[in-house]
Amino acid sequence: MVQRFDRIWQNARLATLREGQPGLGVVDDGVIAARDGRIVFAGPQSDFAADADALERVDCEGRWITPGLVDCHTHLVYGGDRAHEFELRLAGASYEEIARAGGGIVSTVAATRAASELELVASALPRLDALLAEGVTTIEIKSGYGLETATELRQLSAARALGSKRQVGVHTSFLGAHALPAEAGGDKDRYIDLVCNEMLPAVAKSGLADAVDAFMENIAFSADQTARVFAAAHALGLRVKLHADQLSNLGGAALAAEFGALSADHLEHTDEAGAAAMAQAGTVAVLLPGAYYFIRETQKPPVELFRKHGVKLALATDCNPGSSPLTSLLLTMNMAATLFRMTVDECIAGATREGARALGLLAETGTLEAGKWCDLAIWDIGRPAELVYRMGFNPLQQRVWRGQ
Amino acid sequence: MVQRFDRIWQNARLATLREGQPGLGVVDDGVIAARDGRIVFAGPQSDFAADADALERVDCEGRWITPGLVDCHTHLVYGGDRAHEFELRLAGASYEEIARAGGGIVSTVAATRAASELELVASALPRLDALLAEGVTTIEIKSGYGLETATELRQLSAARALGSKRQVGVHTSFLGAHALPAEAGGDKDRYIDLVCNEMLPAVAKSGLADAVDAFMENIAFSADQTARVFAAAHALGLRVKLHADQLSNLGGAALAAEFGALSADHLEHTDEAGAAAMAQAGTVAVLLPGAYYFIRETQKPPVELFRKHGVKLALATDCNPGSSPLTSLLLTMNMAATLFRMTVDECIAGATREGARALGLLAETGTLEAGKWCDLAIWDIGRPAELVYRMGFNPLQQRVWRGQ
Ligand SMILES: [Zn+2]
Ligand SMILES: [Zn+2]
Repeated sequence: MVQRFDRIWQNARLATLREGQPGLGVVDDGVIAARDGRIVFAGPQSDFAADADALERVDCEGRWITPGLVDCHTHLVYGGDRAHEFELRLAGASYEEIARAGGGIVSTVAATRAASELELVASALPRLDALLAEGVTTIEIKSGYGLETATELRQLSAARALGSKRQVGVHTSFLGAHALPAEAGGDKDRYIDLVCNEMLPAVAKSGLADAVDAFMENIAFSADQTARVFAAAHALGLRVKLHADQLSNLGGAALAAEFGALSADHLEHTDEAGAAAMAQAGTVAVLLPGAYYFIRETQKPPVELFRKHGVKLALATDCNPGSSPLTSLLLTMNMAATLFRMTVDECIAGATREGARALGLLAETGTLEAGKWCDLAIWDIGRPAELVYRMGFNPLQQRVWRGQ
Repeated sequence: MVQRFDRIWQNARLATLREGQPGLGVVDDGVIAARDGRIVFAGPQSDFAADADALERVDCEGRWITPGLVDCHTHLVYGGDRAHEFELRLAGASYEEIARAGGGIVSTVAATRAASELELVASALPRLDALLAEGVTTIEIKSGYGLETATELRQLSAARALGSKRQVGVHTSFLGAHALPAEAGGDKDRYIDLVCNEMLPAVAKSGLADAVDAFMENIAFSADQTARVFAAAHALGLRVKLHADQLSNLGGAALAAEFGALSADHLEHTDEAGAAAMAQAGTVAVLLPGAYYFIRETQKPPVELFRKHGVKLALATDCNPGSSPLTSLLLTMNMAATLFRMTVDECIAGATREGARALGLLAETGTLEAGKWCDLAIWDIGRPAELVYRMGFNPLQQRVWRGQ
């Protein structure tokens, strides 16, 4: 019986990223066949049905195909801009002067609260387009610049709207516990009450969030406060993730693991106990070298410890106006290699398979395997290492999202 | 009498970069008028002839116009690729193992020698296109991967050919004194004889080089050897520039100044005497943060000393396969700000006016002033700081080279 497909990509080299295979799971003379947006076959030409039939055949002329890229940690939706603050700081302004000039996260919160959903979508679209132009097919987008219910919901709704404006999978995270708003008058516990008792139920009811995130840090929320948010999220059936151990070691990685978090992110100050707990819990380490670079951090995340304990390593842009105005996942890979000494294979896995794992989407995307969404990035390169090695160069030839 | 122009750009904000003006020489409600490829007027609408006539009028809708960008230090033309070497190093290979696997500059020299001019042009074009897409209108391209006469000439000829394939000004530098080729058997002085007595006269006769460059470093050539190359260049009427003080302080900056060099480049280890000599000689400091970042250097160039002595600061990609596979001048500006703490104004001047000065082209391009080539970059930004602040984002709306 003749097998029928919507589309077949042939004469390609595949970096399948299949687990249990050495390196990138390379197939040299490869074929991908898709039907109804899903991969039906991804493997060597020699294993492929000789009598396959397809509406369209694409000759890849020897190009490389990787899974579509996954940017698993972004704050893509926000109001305003922080370029002026950046300029003032370089010109020698103090933090007080910048605050007086309206800088800092406060300015982003004010601009986000003042923006309509349409404005939030419009300002985020060029950033999203920059990421898609490099082969991103799945993106996580957080709220966290509203810090009150209506704006947090509007941010999440804008994130979902981006997913209908473009051919991309959008995964949303509610990050009400991102910072303390000015009107809380310094009372973090009372603000966390608001997050747990008002915001989270509203978010859960809206169906606008796929997960719940928090920022555990001296300048943000304590372990106890974070645990309260996580418990409330679990009670509503939502999975959690955490901004953990970025500026100091408060045991964020271990707390994330305790709550079975999808991921713990940043992790510059994580210790061995934290790494071991994450491995045990299957919590993915999401490293964010753009933020490390931009804030001129010198403490590197403990990549060796993560390797030793078998913690999975994902990479993301952390795209945000304050600490990582970065819209290139390719450059993120270069930074992970250059600054954190991650290998080429780790970087590419981090921006595909492990990013999908960090979002709980590994069954759907992140590798080239039958049954998954047909999310592909097709590259004009001689070898996958070029994706990591080059800086400021985009060799994407074609992006395919769900077979299109 | 009605003034006639080929094209007028109006309703623009201009960063003119005129000297003697504060900051970027901003004009808020600006107009640029061009004829025969040159700027005839660049200034406020209120000063512009009311009865001007033009074949075409462009409404810039409030966008920003800067001078077209100048990338004043690149090794854009070469054979082969070093991505595999990068991969091996991250995987823990030693320098010996990499050399055995065919890595290092030796591999680039071999691949460049083996490449035809057409192949050199074809492989450089995507890199050039990446730079042009960000608004580059003038680029310097060096030889230095031939290390024998025929290939050095072929590299320079390929560089010139790039200038006829694309709408961009190409400035070439002969860099025969880049490294010692294997066949020289370790005899640097004899190789410098070859550079001075055979290569340089052939290059001068060909007319293919606009300047002469050298690499003065323990791993390359000494002060004496460099001085011999410079003297030979001067005897042939060619101006010089120098890869100086990158890995150690051998007095490269001072030597460059002594020879009235257009620029001294890298300069991580330059001392105050070197900075003072450069200021005295009018030698531009070309900083290359991409190489600093990529080789994980920790010694920063002495920006404060250059400021103190009034040395002009230019920025460039240093695009090359070994130590800076970088094809983004915007990212270069971000690196200069983030890693070297250059201000926004310094970064933008460094990629425009000072780049032009470093090439001896300041009379022709690099600022928005009547009489210069009409080389423009038109940007979709709210303020110039965005060009420096963002990472991996290209807000170029239009590039204009010589009025087109
Ligand atoms: Zn974040
Ligand atoms: Zn160089």
